[in-house]
Amino acid sequence: MRGEIIATLAKPATSKIIFLVMDGLGGLPNLEGKTELEAAHTPNLDALAAAGICGLLDPIDSGITPGSGPAHFALFGYDPWENNIGRGLLEAAGIDFPMREGDLLIRVNFASLTEEGTISDRRAGRIKTEENARICRKLQGGIRSMSDDVRFFCEPVKDHRALLVLRGGEMSEKISESDPQQTGVKPLAPLALAPEAERTALLLQDFLEQAQRLLKDEERVHIPLLRGYARHRRYPSMQERYQMRSLAIASYPMYRGIARLLGMSLASATVTIEEEFAALIAAYEDYDFFFLHIKGTDSKGEDGDFAGKVAVIEQVDSLLPQLTALAPTVLVVTGDHSTPAEWRAHSWHPVPVLLYAKHCRPDLVREFGERACLQGAVGIMPMQKLMALALANAGRLAKFGA
Amino acid sequence: MRGEIIATLAKPATSKIIFLVMDGLGGLPNLEGKTELEAAHTPNLDALAAAGICGLLDPIDSGITPGSGPAHFALFGYDPWENNIGRGLLEAAGIDFPMREGDLLIRVNFASLTEEGTISDRRAGRIKTEENARICRKLQGGIRSMSDDVRFFCEPVKDHRALLVLRGGEMSEKISESDPQQTGVKPLAPLALAPEAERTALLLQDFLEQAQRLLKDEERVHIPLLRGYARHRRYPSMQERYQMRSLAIASYPMYRGIARLLGMSLASATVTIEEEFAALIAAYEDYDFFFLHIKGTDSKGEDGDFAGKVAVIEQVDSLLPQLTALAPTVLVVTGDHSTPAEWRAHSWHPVPVLLYAKHCRPDLVREFGERACLQGAVGIMPMQKLMALALANAGRLAKFGA
Repeated sequence: MRGEIIATLAKPATSKIIFLVMDGLGGLPNLEGKTELEAAHTPNLDALAAAGICGLLDPIDSGITPGSGPAHFALFGYDPWENNIGRGLLEAAGIDFPMREGDLLIRVNFASLTEEGTISDRRAGRIKTEENARICRKLQGGIRSMSDDVRFFCEPVKDHRALLVLRGGEMSEKISESDPQQTGVKPLAPLALAPEAERTALLLQDFLEQAQRLLKDEERVHIPLLRGYARHRRYPSMQERYQMRSLAIASYPMYRGIARLLGMSLASATVTIEEEFAALIAAYEDYDFFFLHIKGTDSKGEDGDFAGKVAVIEQVDSLLPQLTALAPTVLVVTGDHSTPAEWRAHSWHPVPVLLYAKHCRPDLVREFGERACLQGAVGIMPMQKLMALALANAGRLAKFGA
Repeated sequence: MRGEIIATLAKPATSKIIFLVMDGLGGLPNLEGKTELEAAHTPNLDALAAAGICGLLDPIDSGITPGSGPAHFALFGYDPWENNIGRGLLEAAGIDFPMREGDLLIRVNFASLTEEGTISDRRAGRIKTEENARICRKLQGGIRSMSDDVRFFCEPVKDHRALLVLRGGEMSEKISESDPQQTGVKPLAPLALAPEAERTALLLQDFLEQAQRLLKDEERVHIPLLRGYARHRRYPSMQERYQMRSLAIASYPMYRGIARLLGMSLASATVTIEEEFAALIAAYEDYDFFFLHIKGTDSKGEDGDFAGKVAVIEQVDSLLPQLTALAPTVLVVTGDHSTPAEWRAHSWHPVPVLLYAKHCRPDLVREFGERACLQGAVGIMPMQKLMALALANAGRLAKFGA
């Protein structure tokens, strides 16, 4: 409801908002007692923190470790509890699959099996995307239709990851995952979790049996593992909600998918952080809102690479003057969640945030770090509330009530 | 809704969680400007605060003074707004009355009347439990059935407090209290507050008339005063919600009742704080979650005994090393609400909390006190959110979303 009310208050303006999102930014202290962000040398971020307001964001709620999907929905002001969408939908959006209403979208991992039929590698030796595409073509051509009224599409995503789509026949997402999430056991049968899903389960079982026969002589890919079932769903776009032309600069398919689901335009794929900054600068005149996604902080965190994560943060800091030189009306720096190197995974810890704008009423925080942010004017806040604060500082929210 | 989602994320683990709950812990400053907790010498709590995260919990919401029932529901992660259950149910659970679905449970105070029929003592001179039991037997044996399809049970609780149960006949809890909560006036008639409660009201009026006739020659107990009407209700247990075998160590019936309603096992009744700690240590291997309830802080607060409350806190502090020696995965110290000695009653002030766990991302708080906690990483948070934070730190919550 809150989101809908904010939508009624949103108004156009000539202002610009940049969200610089370092994925997995929040951390945990190392042996010297400093988190990655606290240990990093970040003179530019510290200056911005001193001029702006700081705080910590709970992506979902206290104690909840978020997946990237709901965390990014929260960043853009969409209720993450209501928008815990299946990975299948994110993958489909990420490769810009032309979805239709009613499509059932399924995330696929191609896996290797032993002769006994147990899973030996859940990623099939991390095959290249080209081999993935060949396997998808083989399945698309070799599997006979499972039903007259249901079509299927098998599309490569990246490496060992693919997308399976069932179209037609009132398919249901209430199906158990066939991916047991471990090796040494057999793949599970996809089972109906509700009566209306029984037909879907039977069709998927048929699909998997045919696929396994087709792939039995393959060297590495022997079976698709299914998870992240999601029915296609349309979201109100950033344009509809906030009246902003929005641009996403992100290199990973999933984040591109989220941006596309929310109606953002996408900058051409970029590889380095420098290229991402350059893409933003090149498009600066054409958009109102910019989502600049930095993946390296999360990847290094997942690898347990404290120093590597520090280095990514320092690189972003060194490039920050390129953004401040644009003089955006609002510049936000935060993450979508914490990925402490110490924890090697997403965690529940709140994420530091700083917001700089001309009228933000600065607090006493003088550096950008988890503990410094505890004293800031943003407080400890649900991430979902950040967008309204940014819109307000950008002169893009009308008064609520007379 | 939040609670149900968290239940879907809860997963088993070998970790241990201890909630050390000092009832009524929060206070107000004395003439030297210190609260009970700030005035107490608590080296062990201070060390734990320095190693962990601190904050303040609003049991229900800003400005709301909670009863012990909803406050404890909030502590265990159950929505206190939705679970403001009648005292009758807590009393029934506290004495382990074998409730059945549909039972109407009523808290009874035995009271003394003047010859004119006005209340002279709402606690009948605080009769002993043995006399209470005799009165209950007298009522049970002497009151003729009020209706063919409704049975009643009259059970002693403690001192002047008893339990009345109506079973059968679709009884309603929408009845006004007969206890006027003051002396010098006549008891009120229990009246129907909704059309469906009219029959219940008539039966209770009949019960009270018969009881008053039966008790007219008693020395001290002349009438039962009725309040806290509650229909029996089943709650999802801690085991169902969080997959934790839970043990409650509490000496007072009401807290034992709450624990029993939430499916916790109960340690044998204990009297001293030392015995409570010993009971926890003795059962440590057999459970995942421990609720250790200290009543003295609240009792001393209600008595207006500042120094007495300080002494209870200091006693708990001196025993704390017994818990830290167990090396629980998560150790939480807090209260269910504030009972400032200055206020002599439950109050609305938020309650200090500290949570220690290996990966809690320590803040800068160095002592356990109301004002120090204001700077902590927990922030000022609804009490209901504490449990998810404890579960997360214990590795007992799966990721939300992909």
